[in-house]
Amino acid sequence: MNAAATPAYDALMAQCARMQRLEHLQAIATWDRATHMPPKGNEARGAAIAEVTALLHRMRAAPSFGQELERAEQEPLTQEQRADLRELRRRWDADTALPEALVEQGALAGARCEHAWRSRRPAHDWDGFLDDFRPVLANAREQAARLAERLGVSRYEALMAQYEPGLRCATVDRVFGEVRQWLPALVQEVVERQRTQALVEPLGPFALPAQRALCEHAMRLFGFDFEAGRLDVSAHPFCGGVPEDVRLTTRFAEHDFLSALMGTIHETGHARYQQRLPRPWLARPIGQPRSMAIHESQSLAFEMQLGCHPGFVARLAPLLREAFGAQPAFEPQNLQRLLTRVKPGFIRVDADEVSYPAHIILRYEIERPLIEGAIEAGDIPALWDVKMMELLGVDTRGNHRDGALQDVHWPSGLFGYFPCYSLGAMYAAQWFAAMRRAVPGLDAHIDAGDLAPVFDWLETHIWSQGSRWPTDELAERASGQTLDPAHLEAHLRRRYLD
Amino acid sequence: MNAAATPAYDALMAQCARMQRLEHLQAIATWDRATHMPPKGNEARGAAIAEVTALLHRMRAAPSFGQELERAEQEPLTQEQRADLRELRRRWDADTALPEALVEQGALAGARCEHAWRSRRPAHDWDGFLDDFRPVLANAREQAARLAERLGVSRYEALMAQYEPGLRCATVDRVFGEVRQWLPALVQEVVERQRTQALVEPLGPFALPAQRALCEHAMRLFGFDFEAGRLDVSAHPFCGGVPEDVRLTTRFAEHDFLSALMGTIHETGHARYQQRLPRPWLARPIGQPRSMAIHESQSLAFEMQLGCHPGFVARLAPLLREAFGAQPAFEPQNLQRLLTRVKPGFIRVDADEVSYPAHIILRYEIERPLIEGAIEAGDIPALWDVKMMELLGVDTRGNHRDGALQDVHWPSGLFGYFPCYSLGAMYAAQWFAAMRRAVPGLDAHIDAGDLAPVFDWLETHIWSQGSRWPTDELAERASGQTLDPAHLEAHLRRRYLD
Repeated sequence: MNAAATPAYDALMAQCARMQRLEHLQAIATWDRATHMPPKGNEARGAAIAEVTALLHRMRAAPSFGQELERAEQEPLTQEQRADLRELRRRWDADTALPEALVEQGALAGARCEHAWRSRRPAHDWDGFLDDFRPVLANAREQAARLAERLGVSRYEALMAQYEPGLRCATVDRVFGEVRQWLPALVQEVVERQRTQALVEPLGPFALPAQRALCEHAMRLFGFDFEAGRLDVSAHPFCGGVPEDVRLTTRFAEHDFLSALMGTIHETGHARYQQRLPRPWLARPIGQPRSMAIHESQSLAFEMQLGCHPGFVARLAPLLREAFGAQPAFEPQNLQRLLTRVKPGFIRVDADEVSYPAHIILRYEIERPLIEGAIEAGDIPALWDVKMMELLGVDTRGNHRDGALQDVHWPSGLFGYFPCYSLGAMYAAQWFAAMRRAVPGLDAHIDAGDLAPVFDWLETHIWSQGSRWPTDELAERASGQTLDPAHLEAHLRRRYLD
Repeated sequence: MNAAATPAYDALMAQCARMQRLEHLQAIATWDRATHMPPKGNEARGAAIAEVTALLHRMRAAPSFGQELERAEQEPLTQEQRADLRELRRRWDADTALPEALVEQGALAGARCEHAWRSRRPAHDWDGFLDDFRPVLANAREQAARLAERLGVSRYEALMAQYEPGLRCATVDRVFGEVRQWLPALVQEVVERQRTQALVEPLGPFALPAQRALCEHAMRLFGFDFEAGRLDVSAHPFCGGVPEDVRLTTRFAEHDFLSALMGTIHETGHARYQQRLPRPWLARPIGQPRSMAIHESQSLAFEMQLGCHPGFVARLAPLLREAFGAQPAFEPQNLQRLLTRVKPGFIRVDADEVSYPAHIILRYEIERPLIEGAIEAGDIPALWDVKMMELLGVDTRGNHRDGALQDVHWPSGLFGYFPCYSLGAMYAAQWFAAMRRAVPGLDAHIDAGDLAPVFDWLETHIWSQGSRWPTDELAERASGQTLDPAHLEAHLRRRYLD
């Protein structure tokens, strides 16, 4: 392929590299705001981040970019270059579908509602919340309608596409429909089984420097490259930065080392995906992470598949004794029970691996008709109560704080993301099923403390592939099939009922 | 003043605010690179910072910006708005005087020479250095010639103008000429006087957490606002960030707490200038720090005038005992002697307050004819040897490493900055002389631990004034006269010979 024959494609790639360098600054400033920035810096920082965000939007949505894209689509390109354009076309269509005023209005309404929600949630103030939430919902519906028209998909699909391109409601319906058939009974069966298990709680306090050292040790075991990233503390853990310099955060509580540790392992899954994206393609669209469901499949592969694997737990036990001194709770069998305790509850972010999908199915079954106009905001609490009872057997009536007011997503105008969490858990189970077929004795490796075969498989099939393939094709190439929730069911039955 | 009557001025101010928001990102990314970035992030970070630097240059040098500036200059403006335009006009003239290729070539030559210098300096390799340095010098001369033509000043003045606008060689000649008359004898007199002083050296090691706490305590005493800034560690201390969020750095050595402490106090002077710039003007040209000599006058007011003041030293003594335990070196009189020990030596950055100006005068007397073409790079070592002997009585023959190779400035292409350091020391002495006239019993206040009158004076006369006035007018308004080195002489004689 002669480079001179593809001037439009080359110009697009140069522009992508420029935008990525500005996104680098945006990522570091965003990380710093969450980890190091003193309070009086907030206003200027917000304005600086908004400035580069607006600048990037103008670059992405510039008419000249669209014209260049059309020209490039006529050029003689390799298969990988075509994949670059597929990604750019998708983003261009989405970026130019919405009038700037609508996006700004949505951001404002979301910021206002989220701010008010922080005090309305503890006050159980559902009616007050509704006043701020209605404009947020109206704006999201309008954005969904315009995106849907441009992309030729349904309105809810248009919102999901921002996080998981190509995902159809038919797929989500099929997958969540299957899960709905076995999950409620499985949850109850596991709860029944665990009722008679003895369980020793760890006894704190656990000194924060020892917790930090433990988290960094775990990150090393999971292959995090500290020459290309850091661990810091923030109120809400996240994985930010850039592939060459991944900024991972956690938060520590003196009486609970497990949530910092497992949270760190979760974020390390995201981090390794970023750190191991294909180097030569980092500035190209095909060098980006595939999608949010695939991203979540990496964090959950690390946290759930590996982090709660008996082989890893056995390895963790002596590390805990070293960090905090010996105590009965640190016996491997007890640790394993602590990490796999199933307890259906109100709160999604505190949910165990087994009941978690129930929380997601509930949100999908509410936010989809909400966006499509089949239900209104005022209908949420009644639906919430019914579905929590159906799925988890939990009574939420009258408890708005721990019900529909618990998540930041809806108040801030974020719809269509929730499915990615559980799709990620399913993909993670699917990857491990494929790995077990490909690597004989995989569990014996993990039991022996050798995680290399896992990382090799993920690197070959997921990390190195970036956005080269659409998600379905990535899944087929990696595991021989598109998304199949049977692997999650098999994983849960094996871990919790065998 | 009707805002609608000044559309061009208003458009320029909006553009200044946009650029400042991008500079905010640049400042934080630069700080992070020096303090937190892991090594593998370096290349991508360099590219990201270069991208926004180039973008800012394009915005500043856009023809439309120049046209808007011409239109604004015809609009009916207030005195302060005229001052905004004065600053913009000055920057515009400088920003558009140089072809981009020349600037890029200079940056490349400087980066190459500086990189090589890092190994050539320890190797005493002057001849090897010359090979890399000649293109740096040729480029700097070319830039100086073009800037001089545009600004209507001499070539060396054109380079000084980047740091100290309006500074003339006639002024520097007069001021340094005066200092040259009394400094060499004063240095020798002080050395003679101190020869018989008993001096107890502090005994380390000094634990780093205690050093950090001590530095933060000193920053608080000097009024640093930790809600609007931080202290971190970097290889080369600096004061970065933005006025709303000042990022100050220091470096710690286990066996020497004094250099971290005094370095931190120095940077705190820069930091308070930034933190107390006039809030309502922060996005306007008149809200920026006046110049580098004025900036250095703040750091030296803090480090030298206040930090080595017997009143402050007396207050420091118990803090040191608290931090590190009691030892004879921490007696106030001994501490005072440690902080005011005069010892002419090879190295500028290690120089004491008295011999420091000699290092600067030497550099000025070499770099000015170098830029003007009166001497060549090969002439530097011989001149260096003669001037070090004249000014400080130090023999540097054959010692390139601790001679002309000691500073990073020339290898990286930085000419015209050096005078600012000593002008800053002179301005600092001048401010304190004015303060003593304005505040009766100022030293008694400082002796009693009350630094508020000092900060109030600096806030009123320097910090709050930003770039409202040219430097000479700022000095006249603050102290009744333009720069007068007699105040530095009087300060040194009082402190070292009384």
